[in-house]
Amino acid sequence: MDFASDNTAGIAPAIRDALVAANSGFALGYGQDDLTRRLELGMSELFERDVAIFLVPTGTAANALALAHLCPPWGAVLCHAESHVVTDECGAPEFFGGGLRLVGLPGVGCKLVPATLRTAIARNSGHRPHQSNAAVVSLTQASEAGTIYQVDEIQALAEIAHGHGLAVHMDGARFGNALARLGVSPAQATWRAGVDALSFGATKGGALAVEAVVLFDPARADFMGERRKRAGHLFSKHRFLAAQFLAFLADGYWLKLANHANQMADRLADGLRAAGLPPVWPVEANLVFAKLPRATETRLKQAGATFYVRHSDSLPDGQIVGPDEMLVRLVTSFATHAPDVDRFVALLRA
Amino acid sequence: MDFASDNTAGIAPAIRDALVAANSGFALGYGQDDLTRRLELGMSELFERDVAIFLVPTGTAANALALAHLCPPWGAVLCHAESHVVTDECGAPEFFGGGLRLVGLPGVGCKLVPATLRTAIARNSGHRPHQSNAAVVSLTQASEAGTIYQVDEIQALAEIAHGHGLAVHMDGARFGNALARLGVSPAQATWRAGVDALSFGATKGGALAVEAVVLFDPARADFMGERRKRAGHLFSKHRFLAAQFLAFLADGYWLKLANHANQMADRLADGLRAAGLPPVWPVEANLVFAKLPRATETRLKQAGATFYVRHSDSLPDGQIVGPDEMLVRLVTSFATHAPDVDRFVALLRA
Amino acid sequence: MDFASDNTAGIAPAIRDALVAANSGFALGYGQDDLTRRLELGMSELFERDVAIFLVPTGTAANALALAHLCPPWGAVLCHAESHVVTDECGAPEFFGGGLRLVGLPGVGCKLVPATLRTAIARNSGHRPHQSNAAVVSLTQASEAGTIYQVDEIQALAEIAHGHGLAVHMDGARFGNALARLGVSPAQATWRAGVDALSFGATKGGALAVEAVVLFDPARADFMGERRKRAGHLFSKHRFLAAQFLAFLADGYWLKLANHANQMADRLADGLRAAGLPPVWPVEANLVFAKLPRATETRLKQAGATFYVRHSDSLPDGQIVGPDEMLVRLVTSFATHAPDVDRFVALLRA
Amino acid sequence: MDFASDNTAGIAPAIRDALVAANSGFALGYGQDDLTRRLELGMSELFERDVAIFLVPTGTAANALALAHLCPPWGAVLCHAESHVVTDECGAPEFFGGGLRLVGLPGVGCKLVPATLRTAIARNSGHRPHQSNAAVVSLTQASEAGTIYQVDEIQALAEIAHGHGLAVHMDGARFGNALARLGVSPAQATWRAGVDALSFGATKGGALAVEAVVLFDPARADFMGERRKRAGHLFSKHRFLAAQFLAFLADGYWLKLANHANQMADRLADGLRAAGLPPVWPVEANLVFAKLPRATETRLKQAGATFYVRHSDSLPDGQIVGPDEMLVRLVTSFATHAPDVDRFVALLRA
Repeated sequence: MDFASDNTAGIAPAIRDALVAANSGFALGYGQDDLTRRLELGMSELFERDVAIFLVPTGTAANALALAHLCPPWGAVLCHAESHVVTDECGAPEFFGGGLRLVGLPGVGCKLVPATLRTAIARNSGHRPHQSNAAVVSLTQASEAGTIYQVDEIQALAEIAHGHGLAVHMDGARFGNALARLGVSPAQATWRAGVDALSFGATKGGALAVEAVVLFDPARADFMGERRKRAGHLFSKHRFLAAQFLAFLADGYWLKLANHANQMADRLADGLRAAGLPPVWPVEANLVFAKLPRATETRLKQAGATFYVRHSDSLPDGQIVGPDEMLVRLVTSFATHAPDVDRFVALLRA
Repeated sequence: MDFASDNTAGIAPAIRDALVAANSGFALGYGQDDLTRRLELGMSELFERDVAIFLVPTGTAANALALAHLCPPWGAVLCHAESHVVTDECGAPEFFGGGLRLVGLPGVGCKLVPATLRTAIARNSGHRPHQSNAAVVSLTQASEAGTIYQVDEIQALAEIAHGHGLAVHMDGARFGNALARLGVSPAQATWRAGVDALSFGATKGGALAVEAVVLFDPARADFMGERRKRAGHLFSKHRFLAAQFLAFLADGYWLKLANHANQMADRLADGLRAAGLPPVWPVEANLVFAKLPRATETRLKQAGATFYVRHSDSLPDGQIVGPDEMLVRLVTSFATHAPDVDRFVALLRA
Repeated sequence: MDFASDNTAGIAPAIRDALVAANSGFALGYGQDDLTRRLELGMSELFERDVAIFLVPTGTAANALALAHLCPPWGAVLCHAESHVVTDECGAPEFFGGGLRLVGLPGVGCKLVPATLRTAIARNSGHRPHQSNAAVVSLTQASEAGTIYQVDEIQALAEIAHGHGLAVHMDGARFGNALARLGVSPAQATWRAGVDALSFGATKGGALAVEAVVLFDPARADFMGERRKRAGHLFSKHRFLAAQFLAFLADGYWLKLANHANQMADRLADGLRAAGLPPVWPVEANLVFAKLPRATETRLKQAGATFYVRHSDSLPDGQIVGPDEMLVRLVTSFATHAPDVDRFVALLRA
Repeated sequence: MDFASDNTAGIAPAIRDALVAANSGFALGYGQDDLTRRLELGMSELFERDVAIFLVPTGTAANALALAHLCPPWGAVLCHAESHVVTDECGAPEFFGGGLRLVGLPGVGCKLVPATLRTAIARNSGHRPHQSNAAVVSLTQASEAGTIYQVDEIQALAEIAHGHGLAVHMDGARFGNALARLGVSPAQATWRAGVDALSFGATKGGALAVEAVVLFDPARADFMGERRKRAGHLFSKHRFLAAQFLAFLADGYWLKLANHANQMADRLADGLRAAGLPPVWPVEANLVFAKLPRATETRLKQAGATFYVRHSDSLPDGQIVGPDEMLVRLVTSFATHAPDVDRFVALLRA
């Protein structure tokens, strides 16, 4: 009953096998190998346009590199106040970005809406050179609340951003989960909707450790190689990063893995609803948040369940977490077993 | 005939197997897993004292984190002018260190000697607050020239450093190769000789991608966790870093791997000497540098040999690379085949 | 009728004279001169304890240096969302602080209250090493809204801060204006109330350009000299910074200047109230904010009045700026003439 | 007998008077005043082309801002090993430049020569993204040894730099002293010879504290305003910076002041030569370096002379500083009195 995170799972079988298979013979380091070249081609095919990609081992590295690349040190990144870049990266974007600023914005279910973005741009523009000016908007897809942006929602936000000269970044640590639910093409969910750079995550989705910064306009990739290198993120045995991502993408494996995780979240959500404990936000990816009685915590944990209690200011209007309640985050993954989901629900109903 | 680098080899078999074996069940992320705990204990045992370790995937990350931790932004790191931190990390130490300075010093065979260090400390001390003051000395073991520091040489340099308030860092990307040759204990080669922090490399030695920053005084480890996290180097599926290093260390595997690489270098050196092309520096680890006739380059490469032509200002006194010569770097690894060595030499004698 | 800022005034006469007087003979540079030594003693006397001071030419430099000194790069500074460090320093604290984070908090009249601070500390603590942890609280005295913290308010906030290990910084760009109103000693308004570091401004108060970072615990001053130097803020002809501050402090000149500015603000506030346009916040220093009819803007400016229209989310409960209104900031200074104040009010009543 | 530095002098009379004269009435802050506008026009006139200027109070600030603007964080600045940016700015260029690297090069009399520059560019180019690539060459005019670059020397170096894509920065803390000696126009000595950015110093030349970063291509000025602001170097009462520089430039005042300083240096040099203690480098600006008997130090200082003993690796071929000698730096300024020079020489001859 592991619902602590999607990073508590190991490596998905086909990716593990690909790592082993890649371990044959010598290969030039630092991305000069055949697997990397194949992946570069594969990514361009996947996104239906030439893209520039930069592999790194962690989502924090991908986000921080992408934001530092898009935003000058004197600029600001507009993002949800509870987004991963704000709450869980220990200031990596600020560090990589030479002291750029993250401006955390409100929004139900950890999603930004046009009105909020418009106001934030207005407040964080002009008054030069006194004010850090908004330069980037960063959207998390799927969001930290397990919600997803519909394509038209991305389009609307991206249009506002571009209209004011801001670039659009998407933190896609759970991009697969979002896409599996959206049922659109990777292109439709990103650059066709106005996304300039994507942190394309594979780790939470089933890889050992690999994420791709995808720049949809390769002309903007200048010196990204230097950024990655001086951050210590250029792997010498780079083929093993490429091998992971190739296996992740091959034959839609990533979407199958994500789909399983999403289904397990749905099953969990159904169970919670049936138990009178409906999720606080729509369950659209592989995260389920519910208000559970505090009294259940010990029982659940003693029974072997793992999960985190969270705080959020993004609950739907009117909702609060009562003094006897706790807001619990339950994360499913490619490795989640249905019986574990059912057992967890049963424990709650007991 | 791959002599381009020790990172062109793949993963050593036992490490590959350990990665696969670690892939079972769920494990808490970010180093809260059992393998990591085992490694922490194992490292303290290996070094015969409590140490604090921080795993990262690349040598550049390990060096940059260690140097940033030991040296304030207004400080200077004294190191050899041709050390990896100066020539091959794209300014990572400066980036991680908030603009610290690397002061490159001369020295035959990429090694520092006491007189040079003493002068450099004198020149880079005092005159506060106008001058970046020397705060760290960084030694590469084995060096970029394939030479190694004897224990008493480390001691002499560390004594000078400590006597002036400098910390001692060792870039041990090839620590195993050095130790295999020295035949002393890891403790003797490091903290007992005055080393404060070690970048302990496993990647070149046979891992997929893992290095440990070892702080010999755990009391100095405060906030190193934050440094690593905000550099994007804290792995979520951390168990797979720990698994690699555990397998690397188990039963002296790392020294066996290093020993093979060293022997292949010796064999290559012998062959070159026999061919009238003696190495320019003593061959003490897994790197061999020789002056080859420029005319041989095409022939060697066409026959399938890979290697890099380098420049160095650290040749032994009086040696120069003539206009018809090239200084060639030949690197062996755990994966080097003796027949490849012999074939390379044969090609040269042809 | 200049109400644009307190920096549109020139140099107060006694400070101007002191600059001229200091211009005699040779003096060692970089603060090794007699005037600097006299100021250091004078500051310790003023604050009734040994303090360490560092002179710089701008308030942004003072704030950024102080915050960078108190807060690690992976830390967070809690401050009001509309404080100068957030809105008007183009990311200087983040730049000097190696990517530290400013966390903007709400509060009526640009002041923080205990409950807000407590919640913010709770939300920005723990979860290491994933989260930028609160390390400093920064209070602006007088605030950007022209309000001031009473001594017991400072004490209450400082107690909370210290209780959680945070340091307390005071942005005192208008410290003189606050003190002139409070009628307490500099010691009572700062370290006795729990302030650890003060940006003590003289520029807005009447100097050409000088501010002092005052560290109330000199033991915490280590390497502040280096920080200042490498930020380009160590003056070679340092005596001219010291001369300004000495004249500013001599015989309570600074408080007389501040008092005049405050009285002009009071006079303006009285006039506005009489005109049915009461200030939106208590007028406690030298800033007056009022909602004026938009229709008056052209008339006022054509008559020669200068001022800025501002936006604020810190209006007292229930107040809004209507569509036909504008929130106007009117700043007085040591140089403001009473007739100008009266003329401005008369224009509004016309 | 003050020969410690040219910053021990105070403010030249006309500049002092201009400061006082500027202190009348109100003026918009941050460079929106009339004096600043006049200076901007004056600078373009002086340099015979449109230039963008940014005033700051110190030479360190000017250099660090200029270098950070010209060189990316992953780039390297080639400069003399004993240049001010290397030895006396406590890492300011690295700090402002986000961790850029200074590469110190040798050269007699603190001057770079083409062969050295060519080699340095070759060694610090390519090998991307592993190596910090040379992006800027910085020349000090007059140099720290008191020598100057002839126009054709600047041209030769700039041509090499531009040919390899490097920008050319000139540290002109003593630009006036150089120009007064060269007898060419400011344009000839800078952009016409290939200089892209100049740190144009006035402080050492007679101002209280002001330097201008001059960008000869205004199109390259984007965001320099932000850089200056977030470094805390944008003055609110900016008119007083402009007033200083206007007075400095008016009627060639700066060249008259510089000429006096140069003549005092010549007089000193003549005296030293006559005393059998010839300067070690050609005396071309306002610095004189000579090897004096160590035995004279106490006597000179007791007689009231101030000066610094220096070390240099840039002595002319074959010259050494003997064990009984000291290399003394003697600096003259606009304020140096001829009788002091004569007395100093007399003391030496005694």
